[in-house]
Amino acid sequence: MEILDYFPIRGKLSRGQQERLSSSAVLKNFDKGTLLHNGVADCNGLFLVQSGQLRAYTISDEGREVTLYRLFEGDICLFSASCIMRSIQFDVTIEAEKASGIWIIPSETYKSIMEESAPLANFTNEIMAARFSEVMWLLDQVMWKSFDKRLAEFLLEEANIEGTNKLKITHEAIGNHLGNAREVVTRMLRYFQTEGFVKLSRGVITICSPDALRKIGKN
Amino acid sequence: MEILDYFPIRGKLSRGQQERLSSSAVLKNFDKGTLLHNGVADCNGLFLVQSGQLRAYTISDEGREVTLYRLFEGDICLFSASCIMRSIQFDVTIEAEKASGIWIIPSETYKSIMEESAPLANFTNEIMAARFSEVMWLLDQVMWKSFDKRLAEFLLEEANIEGTNKLKITHEAIGNHLGNAREVVTRMLRYFQTEGFVKLSRGVITICSPDALRKIGKN
Repeated sequence: MEILDYFPIRGKLSRGQQERLSSSAVLKNFDKGTLLHNGVADCNGLFLVQSGQLRAYTISDEGREVTLYRLFEGDICLFSASCIMRSIQFDVTIEAEKASGIWIIPSETYKSIMEESAPLANFTNEIMAARFSEVMWLLDQVMWKSFDKRLAEFLLEEANIEGTNKLKITHEAIGNHLGNAREVVTRMLRYFQTEGFVKLSRGVITICSPDALRKIGKN
Repeated sequence: MEILDYFPIRGKLSRGQQERLSSSAVLKNFDKGTLLHNGVADCNGLFLVQSGQLRAYTISDEGREVTLYRLFEGDICLFSASCIMRSIQFDVTIEAEKASGIWIIPSETYKSIMEESAPLANFTNEIMAARFSEVMWLLDQVMWKSFDKRLAEFLLEEANIEGTNKLKITHEAIGNHLGNAREVVTRMLRYFQTEGFVKLSRGVITICSPDALRKIGKN
């Protein structure tokens, strides 16, 4: 993907603005597990995901984590350039969940074009609204959904992302996604196992009955 | 407040754009408790709070509520005009928490100016980022804070908004703000009473020790 391909409104940018976007972007490769951004104090630039997978999450004072959303190939990460907007007053941490190739557009470059281009400003608005929608979904989940439903949905989502029913993920990692302690995850997984929904073995969770998990998630 | 006073970037709008904003706005008065907006299907327009107080909240499938944020004099409500952005994919309900005077700018008018004016688009971005920040704060609260802390902070916030330590609010209303059942609120308030932090009487909660509540909220 070329830089401008990330911007469906590219045709509404002037030749000069297109140039500035394209020429300022730098491609960097990150190993799995690398922290790319850590809170509002960081303002490294806009991340365009060329390959791999990013995870955006928040951390409590006690160090517990909850996943806000994931970013895949073709997605744009706005909060890594949080200084482009004064009113972004919250900390998001971004890590490479898989080895990733990321185009980085410097915050100042992006901001200066956004200030002169209504199409780019409105496109940025749409990105933020999309992330906002994901966080509202999460809020809804943690407010009203019991943990068995959230865990069932998470396992199905993982299977979908990874394209396999054999998930290589630790109970602790699941806890960090869902904002729960590892023990809580282990207990619920064991319950799922006794019901025959999953099979647990060292480092692997095998989904035996996606239908049963789907049913739990929907209840 | 004049319409244009709500927009600190008004000087960057053309005379024609200023005219369109001002002349399209209609002032409406709403009684306390009126529903002004109900989910993405509604798109009544941008609300500018002239007087009174609005409450933005979400409702679970079971009808339970949680307050997202409040809007006061001088604030702008974006989600009542959710159709100005395609990516706003979540339902927010807005009610007049007090009798309110609201300027309404039709969504189409606002959208058309936003599409041609980078300053207005960027200002809209800032409004959304500010609301996003409030929701992130809420997420943080419900994820990591115990209910006693949230209730203590809520009581102090109410006292601050109302300018009194005698709060005329039902336990059910508090439950609707915090996303908890009435019984849970009553139980915790009774505990606060036995500790001498508050005094409960018919329809009134009197804060006896703001300092004690502050201490709970911070823990």
